[in-house]
Amino acid sequence: MNSILPTRRLFGPGPTNPYPEATVALGHPLLGHLDPEFIARLDRTCEGLRQVWGTTNARTLPLSGTGSLGMEAAFVNTVKPGDVVVIAVNGLFGERMCDVAARCGAEVVRVDHEYGTPVDADRVADAHPSPAIIAAVHAETSTGVRSDIRALGEIKGDALLITDAVTSIAGSELRADDWGIDVGYAGTQKCLGVAPGLAPFTISDRAFERRNTTPQSWYVDLGLLGGYVGEASGGRTYHHTAPVAMIASLEAALERVLAEGLENAWARHQAAGDALQAGLQSMGLELFAAEGHRLAQLTTVKVPDGTDSAKVRSYLLDHYDLEIGGGVGQYAATVWRIGLMGPNAHPASVTLILGALEDAIKNA
Amino acid sequence: MNSILPTRRLFGPGPTNPYPEATVALGHPLLGHLDPEFIARLDRTCEGLRQVWGTTNARTLPLSGTGSLGMEAAFVNTVKPGDVVVIAVNGLFGERMCDVAARCGAEVVRVDHEYGTPVDADRVADAHPSPAIIAAVHAETSTGVRSDIRALGEIKGDALLITDAVTSIAGSELRADDWGIDVGYAGTQKCLGVAPGLAPFTISDRAFERRNTTPQSWYVDLGLLGGYVGEASGGRTYHHTAPVAMIASLEAALERVLAEGLENAWARHQAAGDALQAGLQSMGLELFAAEGHRLAQLTTVKVPDGTDSAKVRSYLLDHYDLEIGGGVGQYAATVWRIGLMGPNAHPASVTLILGALEDAIKNA
Repeated sequence: MNSILPTRRLFGPGPTNPYPEATVALGHPLLGHLDPEFIARLDRTCEGLRQVWGTTNARTLPLSGTGSLGMEAAFVNTVKPGDVVVIAVNGLFGERMCDVAARCGAEVVRVDHEYGTPVDADRVADAHPSPAIIAAVHAETSTGVRSDIRALGEIKGDALLITDAVTSIAGSELRADDWGIDVGYAGTQKCLGVAPGLAPFTISDRAFERRNTTPQSWYVDLGLLGGYVGEASGGRTYHHTAPVAMIASLEAALERVLAEGLENAWARHQAAGDALQAGLQSMGLELFAAEGHRLAQLTTVKVPDGTDSAKVRSYLLDHYDLEIGGGVGQYAATVWRIGLMGPNAHPASVTLILGALEDAIKNA
Repeated sequence: MNSILPTRRLFGPGPTNPYPEATVALGHPLLGHLDPEFIARLDRTCEGLRQVWGTTNARTLPLSGTGSLGMEAAFVNTVKPGDVVVIAVNGLFGERMCDVAARCGAEVVRVDHEYGTPVDADRVADAHPSPAIIAAVHAETSTGVRSDIRALGEIKGDALLITDAVTSIAGSELRADDWGIDVGYAGTQKCLGVAPGLAPFTISDRAFERRNTTPQSWYVDLGLLGGYVGEASGGRTYHHTAPVAMIASLEAALERVLAEGLENAWARHQAAGDALQAGLQSMGLELFAAEGHRLAQLTTVKVPDGTDSAKVRSYLLDHYDLEIGGGVGQYAATVWRIGLMGPNAHPASVTLILGALEDAIKNA
């Protein structure tokens, strides 16, 4: 271990700095995973997750892995071999959905969109007359774009709607039930303000009834996980050892977010992102995501001509202990991604990042 | 959250109380998952894991889930549809292996053993002339039995040997390379003394070369995970967001275990288990696991006739803030499981549990 631990300001695409309550909870005495006190904690956590998802789904729980495990769980439990799965692709995480769905035996129908633009519900609707599943990313972490999931819910017909809410949950308006989301997964390390390691997950009764009863994954088999969250009438049944410390941390963050008020948290993220985006444009920088569809919690901005993206990022890390993200794929060197999530959705972050970035562009 | 947090003595089958260093590390400032400081931390963690596994395997890493995800990764990456997989079953985790392997399309050949007895390598060898894979549990958490993995390595022939070391790692002699283990998985919440949430994993070059290049799981696709741990010549590639807090905790615990000395840690677990088992027998209790094959870190003991197992466990929780485990499956009410793992492998734990159990049996 290094003798001096850096204290990073995590303004990249995630993880963000956690809420203090979430960090404190990690240090509390550990509970056994079958301890009545832990069971009560898991129940409170699931209930808090229902609120941030905007759902009454009984099967709402933190899966024991990162957001990508949530994606795998969504497809593994619902895709049957040969199923037509229409996937809206407007960034890296839509791409990943195609890979994951194909491994489940899906006939994947891609609906490609230009990176930086939102999903077009009409094009998704026209892609296939009767898909089994439609899938899209609510907040594309790779491009900083928000898509209209409600519009997909309106056109889904009999299909199940799978939604990636990794970067939107607790940072943008998200109403799983009202919008018709059947299966949703998220991560903890963005606007929930918790370290990475859990995947908040929700599935509607309708989707659960259609599920694979023996999916190819045992670890995320939702039939088995029902017992883990106490669905069985005989009480809790052992499936796997719950990651008790991370769940304690998530519970603490949920309590904090819900005490603030979910709509207040959304508004705080919006205000911070608006201020950052206005400031970046005042500096003469150009935003990457299409106007009107920009995420507040994750801003994408074009690297100015003649500026070395990597040098700027290293300078920020070295001089300010401040992390921002590079772009993804073909935009690796030409886009920066700046996250203001969880406790970092704050005016102080905006002022700091604008000042530091101006210095870095000039002097890196 | 409750206003008073209980401080449990976790003497069940896991999680154990973590090493103090592991808890402290959870509270340190978070690093981004692509931060050079975190990359160095991940590298140190993988190197420490090589030491506790007894391997030089390049592909040794903490998977981002609990031990059960490790099991899934082992089979998903190696089993091809129709492969004969011989599985030694002498407890719950051998049973689980059969389920997981079958979901990968394996032709599972079970070799059943009486619960409480160790795996018989000769019977495994006789089960099939040319299996693709042989799998067994080193330390059966459900029964408290240690099996001879070296003997399986000697009879494996051309098969790959998969080993579950969830409860043995850092608590019992474990020499992956010397014993011929091709794929091994473990957990952090037992003798490593870390909260649950990571699966230490190792795979030999031989097994990696035979792997499925597009396994049914994207999340634990070892080909993709190579980039995550820096295998690619072009440096680190993004796969999923590493659970950075848990990895910091694991790194701290590994540093502690290796500073103590791995053989010293094994000896400490052995001494604590020996003392506990002697004390239980002095109280007139009967041990469950076969003599000569008992795990030191997890003792199974028969519930005395006329004693209500659940009442005793509740009494211990209520009066002593002390957790022990019940039995598994048909032994749920007739066996207790007592773990002395990580920091709890200590004479003070032995004295406490013997005194508390005597009180509970009398007065619960």
